[in-house]
Amino acid sequence: MSVLEQTIRAIAPLDERAMAAARARQSRLTKPPGSLGRLERISVQVAGIQRTSRPNVSQKAVFVMAADHGVVAQGVTAYPQGVTAQMVANFAAGGAAINVLARHIGARVVIVDMGVAADLPPCPGLVCMKVAYGTCDLSCGPAMSADQARCALEHGIEVFGSELSRGLQLAATGDMGIGNTTASAAIIAAITGRSPSDVAGRGTGIDDHRLRRKIEVLERALSVSRPDASDGLDVLAKVGGFEIGGLAGVIIAAAAAHVPVVIDGVISGAAALIATTLAPQAKDYLIAGHLSTEPGHWAALDHMAIEPLLDLDMRLGEGTGAALALGIVEASVKLLNEMATFDEAGVSGALED
Amino acid sequence: MSVLEQTIRAIAPLDERAMAAARARQSRLTKPPGSLGRLERISVQVAGIQRTSRPNVSQKAVFVMAADHGVVAQGVTAYPQGVTAQMVANFAAGGAAINVLARHIGARVVIVDMGVAADLPPCPGLVCMKVAYGTCDLSCGPAMSADQARCALEHGIEVFGSELSRGLQLAATGDMGIGNTTASAAIIAAITGRSPSDVAGRGTGIDDHRLRRKIEVLERALSVSRPDASDGLDVLAKVGGFEIGGLAGVIIAAAAAHVPVVIDGVISGAAALIATTLAPQAKDYLIAGHLSTEPGHWAALDHMAIEPLLDLDMRLGEGTGAALALGIVEASVKLLNEMATFDEAGVSGALED
Repeated sequence: MSVLEQTIRAIAPLDERAMAAARARQSRLTKPPGSLGRLERISVQVAGIQRTSRPNVSQKAVFVMAADHGVVAQGVTAYPQGVTAQMVANFAAGGAAINVLARHIGARVVIVDMGVAADLPPCPGLVCMKVAYGTCDLSCGPAMSADQARCALEHGIEVFGSELSRGLQLAATGDMGIGNTTASAAIIAAITGRSPSDVAGRGTGIDDHRLRRKIEVLERALSVSRPDASDGLDVLAKVGGFEIGGLAGVIIAAAAAHVPVVIDGVISGAAALIATTLAPQAKDYLIAGHLSTEPGHWAALDHMAIEPLLDLDMRLGEGTGAALALGIVEASVKLLNEMATFDEAGVSGALED
Repeated sequence: MSVLEQTIRAIAPLDERAMAAARARQSRLTKPPGSLGRLERISVQVAGIQRTSRPNVSQKAVFVMAADHGVVAQGVTAYPQGVTAQMVANFAAGGAAINVLARHIGARVVIVDMGVAADLPPCPGLVCMKVAYGTCDLSCGPAMSADQARCALEHGIEVFGSELSRGLQLAATGDMGIGNTTASAAIIAAITGRSPSDVAGRGTGIDDHRLRRKIEVLERALSVSRPDASDGLDVLAKVGGFEIGGLAGVIIAAAAAHVPVVIDGVISGAAALIATTLAPQAKDYLIAGHLSTEPGHWAALDHMAIEPLLDLDMRLGEGTGAALALGIVEASVKLLNEMATFDEAGVSGALED
């Protein structure tokens, strides 16, 4: 059995006993029942994932996976392809938005070259898992071979495993790749059955002209390759990207290791669709960090029936929305662990009606 | 001129030059313009408030003001009045939700007895500013005298001043007071002109029977006292509470001192309505931390035309929603200050269309 199949098989349902114990503790804490809303529900989910009524998420990492996309040749992006490599250097130097947010919430940033179309100088914190120098143009044929798709997923699983061995209790996904909102929209259209015009967005800020071209490119890609919506590997190979495959691997590996994963925007959403098509049970391990302004993101979350935590009108990627949400998830777990109970604090319960 | 009038007069418009400089810096940071959404706009607002293009919000405090309410005699609450004092003791011991969240985001908690109906044992971190042992029953006549209303506001101003002298760059408001969603709903109905049934909610969790009674109590209160919607002091006196007056004082004092204030749920929303009725310019200094599930909160924010940052289905009070938002506001300021520019990072700008 391959690493991918082995990892998928290791994913177990959430621990109902731990969740019941966490719910019971929430009801004894000094607050009206349910008054912490989403925070209570998130803490119970994390308890179920970590299989303990007193979870811990102090060791946190954001996986930022980067790759290039052959489809940029179609003129569907606002920035030139070279920006992918330049931004990886910016991540490595600590100057990007995700670096600032990860420092703010106390998470480490794991930068992964999954397929940037340039040789990147080695540097601390940058993991080289390059599958190839960018994908082929998905509007002319498959973006990658079936072997490359599997390789991207297994690279993601490997990177996750090596971070897990350093200590990891809460993961977040992020991305960098000029052209990757096009690949993500194609994945989302393929899996959810929505039309390209419903899921295509302006990415980093394209004008009406490029947006029309992007929709045409998506229509062509889906009719040329006809990805099989029920087969995550096929969708990834036909219209995906190496960073998207890597992130899907991270999600599957996290679920197998009982680690909650906070997903970011539309690229992470597409990765989650690939992951949950391959491993439906992985869905219970996901927390949607935020709602991006990219229309495809909403479609992806709606398809998986998961509700975003934040809605701050963001569309940067890199894991920025997920990083902000990591802080909220950690807060929810601290509330469960650290609040006094009614008994401990000597606070009266509710009046009888 | 009284302390209150002096403080109101000291409130200046936001600094347009600092805001323009912050906006210009945002456009040079390594991200597509506007892609950090609300975070960019918040950082610009904070720049305007602090009158510098490089603001700093590392010194943070949550003002949790507590008081009791005579209206509890009408049976409109789910918990007995004694819980107010018990929860103040819980705050002082560090066991309440607000303590956990304030530790999480690195803020201090300033607990203020504005009018709890019991003598509280002195303890570190608890400031005694008691106006009286709870308000009168607002459904039978004014909740407090005009002098007490002014006193509550000026106590809030005084507490803020003493925290400012300790170093304070970002403030949040929170509350504790059994019965205070009734007083807040009355204030919101009085100022926004909405009907009691539109703004009354279930508070800490009352049933249908108590909710009907709460609406009747609100209708009676407004017809007995006829508060003058254009006079914040009159509304506070007729249907308010001491902690609500104190929080309105904190908001006015923060605006006068160029400190941004993150407001919490429905009680802080009512306090903000009082504050902005007295000092309309204070509105520019407010950030709505979250949207509470109490219907009156939405009405208050809508009246002031401010949009909440978070929507997590919370209704606890204490400043819990505001505390979570403090972390987001701090993140927005760090992004403005710490991200690399395109020039610094050697990243290419957008393609010409």
